[in-house]
Amino acid sequence: MYIGQGFDAHRFAAEGTGRELWLAGLLWPQAGEGIEGDSDGDVAVHALIDALLAAAGLGDIGSLFGVGADAHGAGMHGIDMLRETVHHLHTHGYAPHSASVAIIGNRPHVGKRRAEAQDVLSAAMGCRVSVTATTTDHMGFTGRGEGIAAIASALVADLR
Amino acid sequence: MYIGQGFDAHRFAAEGTGRELWLAGLLWPQAGEGIEGDSDGDVAVHALIDALLAAAGLGDIGSLFGVGADAHGAGMHGIDMLRETVHHLHTHGYAPHSASVAIIGNRPHVGKRRAEAQDVLSAAMGCRVSVTATTTDHMGFTGRGEGIAAIASALVADLR
Amino acid sequence: MYIGQGFDAHRFAAEGTGRELWLAGLLWPQAGEGIEGDSDGDVAVHALIDALLAAAGLGDIGSLFGVGADAHGAGMHGIDMLRETVHHLHTHGYAPHSASVAIIGNRPHVGKRRAEAQDVLSAAMGCRVSVTATTTDHMGFTGRGEGIAAIASALVADLR
Ligand SMILES: [Zn+2]
Ligand SMILES: [Zn+2]
Ligand SMILES: [Zn+2]
Repeated sequence: MYIGQGFDAHRFAAEGTGRELWLAGLLWPQAGEGIEGDSDGDVAVHALIDALLAAAGLGDIGSLFGVGADAHGAGMHGIDMLRETVHHLHTHGYAPHSASVAIIGNRPHVGKRRAEAQDVLSAAMGCRVSVTATTTDHMGFTGRGEGIAAIASALVADLR
Repeated sequence: MYIGQGFDAHRFAAEGTGRELWLAGLLWPQAGEGIEGDSDGDVAVHALIDALLAAAGLGDIGSLFGVGADAHGAGMHGIDMLRETVHHLHTHGYAPHSASVAIIGNRPHVGKRRAEAQDVLSAAMGCRVSVTATTTDHMGFTGRGEGIAAIASALVADLR
Repeated sequence: MYIGQGFDAHRFAAEGTGRELWLAGLLWPQAGEGIEGDSDGDVAVHALIDALLAAAGLGDIGSLFGVGADAHGAGMHGIDMLRETVHHLHTHGYAPHSASVAIIGNRPHVGKRRAEAQDVLSAAMGCRVSVTATTTDHMGFTGRGEGIAAIASALVADLR
């Protein structure tokens, strides 16, 4: 069993852009502007992807999906990137065993849809995935509502 | 074995409020004002609780203890919340196996009482719990002394 | 198997100091000023050391190497501190099993030399070590380029 650590942070889009807010594999309507990023900006999923790739020794989200508007991952939904990541692990003889992501930000209110988010992520990963959420009491960039961050950890089994 | 990730951050109380400073299950007299929060503001314990609940797939501190002044956890000491969390895990067939929390802040000087803190937390959880502490070299909200943060991870055994 | 969590953050040295930039066990020439700190300021290695010591229940980097200019670790390269940490674990009956560190900062561009960094760290630890890297989209102290941070997690085997 190998351990992986992931982190990600992105900025909220400016008011009025009408960008969809995707987080933890879910669309959050009426929760304010979405998150910037080449893909859908889903920091929870991106942190989980980094944790999985790290645990498997297969690089990180930048090396697998590229960076920038021309990248392979540009425009992809986080959850589709997560599915592709898990497939990538399988082809290298690894399988996700357990994962957890802590979301840090003022919105959306993740707790209301935790079960739904965990179901979507677990289905994509084929293992237990837990989602927790907290704020930083108006401190720092997450507390000022500038953006959102996520810290993830994962255990990956070696099937080889 | 399941992995869980937790994070928490709270603001230090304003000077002169005389609020007790609780951190990592200990009372820290003469270490300055305490930490704000509905409970005792013990970010280290709160992050550990989130890591344990996440590993066990049992939600997070907000779902177990509520949020706000009327919440079940309002006014509780973090260490009592931790004991209740461990009991909650046991009733669902889980047991903490190992846990670790990294505290990020200017004060108190955790290293001086690390063994004591680890003993209190280990007694509450029934497993090894390690406490590390660092600063952010005067950068960010922890570096400016506005507040304190903690990142925790835990392994939980499935006894079922 | 025990889990450990580590975190570290340091400030970049002021322009013109000519300080060498050490990160993840490597020297990064032409990547700008180095990182401040009593040792070489290698936040990735320092976070890994804390994760290893925490997992083994052997304190943290401050208790093993001291703090300040007179400390045992003053002037040491992070990678040498990491080797000494692993030796310390061995003498107490522990061995690193797997570790991962997420670096948060604007520079250097870690992805370009990920394999090299992982090789150096793995050789020092005797196990798989993964390195991921991300930015914070110009938010917070890492996003403003004031400093750099790292979050690490580790699994340690009990050989006793
Ligand atoms: Zn991202
Ligand atoms: Zn809290
Ligand atoms: Zn350091």
